[in-house]
Amino acid sequence: MFSKKLDSLKTYEAGKPIELVVREFGIEPKDIIKLASNENPYGCSKKVQEEVKKIVNQMSIYPDDSMYELKEGLSKKFDVDSKNIIIGAGSDQVLEFAIHAIEPKKVLMSKTTFAMYEIYSKQVGAEIIKTSSHEHNLDEFRKYKDEADIIFLCLPNNPVGECLDWNDVKNFIDEVDKDTLIIIDGAYQEYATFKDKNKKIEPKWILDYPNILYTGTFSKAYGLGGMRIGYGIANENIIKNLYKLRPPFNITTLSLKAGIIALQDEEFVNNSIKNNFIEMERYEEFCKNKNLKYIQSYTNFITIFVDDSTKLADDLLKIGIIVRNLASYELNAIRITIGSKLQNDKVLETLNKLI
Amino acid sequence: MFSKKLDSLKTYEAGKPIELVVREFGIEPKDIIKLASNENPYGCSKKVQEEVKKIVNQMSIYPDDSMYELKEGLSKKFDVDSKNIIIGAGSDQVLEFAIHAIEPKKVLMSKTTFAMYEIYSKQVGAEIIKTSSHEHNLDEFRKYKDEADIIFLCLPNNPVGECLDWNDVKNFIDEVDKDTLIIIDGAYQEYATFKDKNKKIEPKWILDYPNILYTGTFSKAYGLGGMRIGYGIANENIIKNLYKLRPPFNITTLSLKAGIIALQDEEFVNNSIKNNFIEMERYEEFCKNKNLKYIQSYTNFITIFVDDSTKLADDLLKIGIIVRNLASYELNAIRITIGSKLQNDKVLETLNKLI
Repeated sequence: MFSKKLDSLKTYEAGKPIELVVREFGIEPKDIIKLASNENPYGCSKKVQEEVKKIVNQMSIYPDDSMYELKEGLSKKFDVDSKNIIIGAGSDQVLEFAIHAIEPKKVLMSKTTFAMYEIYSKQVGAEIIKTSSHEHNLDEFRKYKDEADIIFLCLPNNPVGECLDWNDVKNFIDEVDKDTLIIIDGAYQEYATFKDKNKKIEPKWILDYPNILYTGTFSKAYGLGGMRIGYGIANENIIKNLYKLRPPFNITTLSLKAGIIALQDEEFVNNSIKNNFIEMERYEEFCKNKNLKYIQSYTNFITIFVDDSTKLADDLLKIGIIVRNLASYELNAIRITIGSKLQNDKVLETLNKLI
Repeated sequence: MFSKKLDSLKTYEAGKPIELVVREFGIEPKDIIKLASNENPYGCSKKVQEEVKKIVNQMSIYPDDSMYELKEGLSKKFDVDSKNIIIGAGSDQVLEFAIHAIEPKKVLMSKTTFAMYEIYSKQVGAEIIKTSSHEHNLDEFRKYKDEADIIFLCLPNNPVGECLDWNDVKNFIDEVDKDTLIIIDGAYQEYATFKDKNKKIEPKWILDYPNILYTGTFSKAYGLGGMRIGYGIANENIIKNLYKLRPPFNITTLSLKAGIIALQDEEFVNNSIKNNFIEMERYEEFCKNKNLKYIQSYTNFITIFVDDSTKLADDLLKIGIIVRNLASYELNAIRITIGSKLQNDKVLETLNKLI
């Protein structure tokens, strides 16, 4: 009865939720430190919380499916037109629209990158080409670019953390055939831009290309991971085609409000990012002291190479610290979301004992 | 660049949102009566509102992707195992999983029924077979059943309102080839069951079938349309296959909580349904007085045939009353969600002037 293509599909392995650790290890929720899913440790804007509270009596009402006000907000933020924007339930969903709209035969991505690229591509039966380097290496991308119908650039790259310079990206995209869709995943762009202006990518720079889709999210710097709000920005033709695969009401009424208000509180975002890099230095210091290799990160997480990542992740889990083991990516490393000061105190103290 | 199949795709025409009427006609939001999307006019449970308010500081946190507690709640409600349940962003998304998992060549549905069946089926290039009657006629379904890979039964049927008896459904499904998936869409089942026990379908009755998927929603009787929570119930093999197409975190953190609490407040649901049918009688009376044909409804809306549905819907819209014009379904009728007493007072008074 079911399509043959389902046989080869893997499902996404999410970071372990707090609830699961509570159930499996009997640790109190308040004692669990979850640094596995790159959630914003500062929560989300207080203004967003207040406005969402005010409309809980509207949970029965479907959202404005035109998402007029949210698109206006993004339009202002990025200096692009509303018709260049599509909203998704997380930027994942925009990726899903794009992959299903193209039905690529082959797709190209970095060896280690966001897992959903591969999962969605396999749903449409695409062959996956990966570069041999874990980090983005454009010369390796160049080798395969002519074969691919979609090229994924994760800038900065999750779950590794590195980021290409815009200048190099620009040179690369100019060489790519205009019939190949390039997806620039900017989920962590706010962090990269703050740390190094050379990494900055403005969505409006790609509007003149007929074949580039930029995706962004409210899940990271805006602290709204649980609300599932992302967006795609591209020329009107691409957006129109993606719209054909968008189900109605694809974000919730409360998410729509949260996104609108979040765009009005850039102070929260800036503080989150500033604190993120102050705290990240502590992990870098730790690695230097312990002689551990780590990847220079332009995100809100850090990838640290260790002796046995599976054992370390398990040992941390048993005492209520959840990090991501990257063994399934063939990396003997753990990825730790940069937490709040208090969380990092505890994690660094524990790591100091375990390593 | 884009798949050829996109050319034939239509997008779903949502009920006009309040925001749009505000923008187009300059009517104050408080003066608008929206009875176009079958939202619950009694809102949602106060308990749900309270619990959601309490966790707005967790909007940064992804939901428990196992959805353990919500599935436990549904499992108890329906007396089925958790492994027989999948959660969707509305029951729409469960339909999407099923259609994409089967990739049907042909699908069979009633002439007038929930629009997303056709939209999702066209996304995978399926040919659409519709019965000639607007309402479900099982003898017409029998004529085509052997050709279809998926058969949709909307019980009760949106946007028409009628509902088949379980006995008749049972006889039909027993005749259908076990390699054809039958989807029983129970979005309005709570209403039908209340009005007439013969319409009642318990999901556990279909678990022994290898080819039946039951879908349900929190959008209607539970009053959570804006939160996008639905579910599918079927034998484990079907659920496992649908899971392969489920994106992670497909409902929000607040939606997950809302669903869990909503299941604990059946009193709200029962009151909503009871009031719905008390108020529906007023519309039936109105139709009888005006000699208008209407369809006996087992839902929270009523379909009324009129002289010119497009004109009537437009006239209502201009004064801030939003109903659904069914002209696009080749029905010269409007579909009105049964509102609250106050809303219905205003609507009936207005209809009395206009008709």
